[in-house]
Amino acid sequence: MSETTKPIILDGKQTAKDIRSEIAETVAGMVERGEKAPHLAAVLVGNDGGSETYVNYKVKDCKEVGFGSTLIRKADTISQEELLQVVKDLNENPEIDGFIVQLPLPKHIDEQEIIRAIDPGKDVDGFHPVNVGNMVLGMDGFLSATPSGIVELLRRYKIETSGKHCVVIGRSNIVGTPMSILLSRNTEVGNATVTLCHSRTKNLKEITLQADILIPALGKPGFVSGDMIKEGAVIVDVGTTRVPDDSKKSGYALKGDVKFDEASPKASAITPVPGGVGPMTRVSLLLNTLKAGRLKA
Amino acid sequence: MSETTKPIILDGKQTAKDIRSEIAETVAGMVERGEKAPHLAAVLVGNDGGSETYVNYKVKDCKEVGFGSTLIRKADTISQEELLQVVKDLNENPEIDGFIVQLPLPKHIDEQEIIRAIDPGKDVDGFHPVNVGNMVLGMDGFLSATPSGIVELLRRYKIETSGKHCVVIGRSNIVGTPMSILLSRNTEVGNATVTLCHSRTKNLKEITLQADILIPALGKPGFVSGDMIKEGAVIVDVGTTRVPDDSKKSGYALKGDVKFDEASPKASAITPVPGGVGPMTRVSLLLNTLKAGRLKA
Repeated sequence: MSETTKPIILDGKQTAKDIRSEIAETVAGMVERGEKAPHLAAVLVGNDGGSETYVNYKVKDCKEVGFGSTLIRKADTISQEELLQVVKDLNENPEIDGFIVQLPLPKHIDEQEIIRAIDPGKDVDGFHPVNVGNMVLGMDGFLSATPSGIVELLRRYKIETSGKHCVVIGRSNIVGTPMSILLSRNTEVGNATVTLCHSRTKNLKEITLQADILIPALGKPGFVSGDMIKEGAVIVDVGTTRVPDDSKKSGYALKGDVKFDEASPKASAITPVPGGVGPMTRVSLLLNTLKAGRLKA
Repeated sequence: MSETTKPIILDGKQTAKDIRSEIAETVAGMVERGEKAPHLAAVLVGNDGGSETYVNYKVKDCKEVGFGSTLIRKADTISQEELLQVVKDLNENPEIDGFIVQLPLPKHIDEQEIIRAIDPGKDVDGFHPVNVGNMVLGMDGFLSATPSGIVELLRRYKIETSGKHCVVIGRSNIVGTPMSILLSRNTEVGNATVTLCHSRTKNLKEITLQADILIPALGKPGFVSGDMIKEGAVIVDVGTTRVPDDSKKSGYALKGDVKFDEASPKASAITPVPGGVGPMTRVSLLLNTLKAGRLKA
């Protein structure tokens, strides 16, 4: 591609907005037919600022598309048994189609035990081992929000993945690892040759330079520089780190893992930060909740 | 390495024999202490020659190490409900620590439903989605036999995996995909940069030539030729295909995915076929059954 060609901006914000409209239309149709609107519950333990913000977004998103929503707040002194009871009640409550327990949980709580207690059919975060296993096996289930949001973004922009070399940087349980698995599967947005890189990888640049599709998910602002990118690559930047910025009202700016200015002249397509992967992650939870509601309808 | 240096032969047959001795010793200790010996059950449906052979090996292996074993034979006319009842009975039978349902099952049987009906705590094949998910999440569970056998072989031969580029060819649910996940995890035999290749991969040779550790799992005899191998690579050949051979009493020979004669002068270490991955796969089932027995002790 010539240097004057601008890359396609993979606009997650607009795409997520489109998807919310589609969901809203679907929900309106369900309600018109006398069906129950999908209902999401969120459990928020303690007063972590970040968690509070995320949960509020989730509730707001539900309202926008016409879902029911329930926010359950618990003090950070809640015991393991009490929290397990909250989960059990939600599992058994027929009004609730899907629910999430916002992470992280206080240190005295066994997070894994809580996740395992969630009914996999209501686990719209896709964190339960059954849902992770279903993803690996290509069976139906709930996919975790960030990787499924990225798949949806690639699908809507008709980015070819089959036979492409996709390099994922970062092996977290909720982003890098599932992303690498999803893209290698024999599915529509899949069939890529996938390399999963992480903190122990040597010669990272040698590998990223081979990437037709590069997906950094490290949370290290500006980690990926222009010289690490192959001409014409598709760049999906998962990083969203808060960096102090006095020029913003909030006092911080969101920075991606990629140096956008260096990457965009080389890329054929690229996600901005903010407005790329973040909104797609948010809307994935709505898609999972819609799916949960329909499964129970 | 000079051309006269011979590669280390990763002797799966001998390693598996050593492990069986260790298991036998452990079981003898359990019995001496008045504990129950681990007990494996195998369900064999129909009269498929291959399945029959495999199941007979499994029963024989159990006897050798002092496990109890039960072989349950069912006609290939068994219904889905009847087979589910067999699974349910085994789930509830306190004598049985672990069991397998030999695959493939007749076409009228929903294999996935059968696998999902198995108590994950007795699923010594590691096929249940919960166990697959646990593997991805790095949680305790049962690993499927071939990848865990390979990990054990690498561990015993002290093959360094951390920071190495490992290339897996083949993305099956029971070998290639779990192998790629296991090696990329932050564990003792792990921390590798892993590329998962498959039928849609382009420029395969370009990628295999980067492999410090190459794991072909395609089932295509002689697919990997010498020119696809980097000098000093570790080769783990998962392929074991029956090829007609009149010089053998059985009428066939087992052939790997790798041209051994071309690969061994370049490799620093290599598994033979037969006698490499196969015996390690077999012994992994015993290790899983031992684990299941101890969990219940």
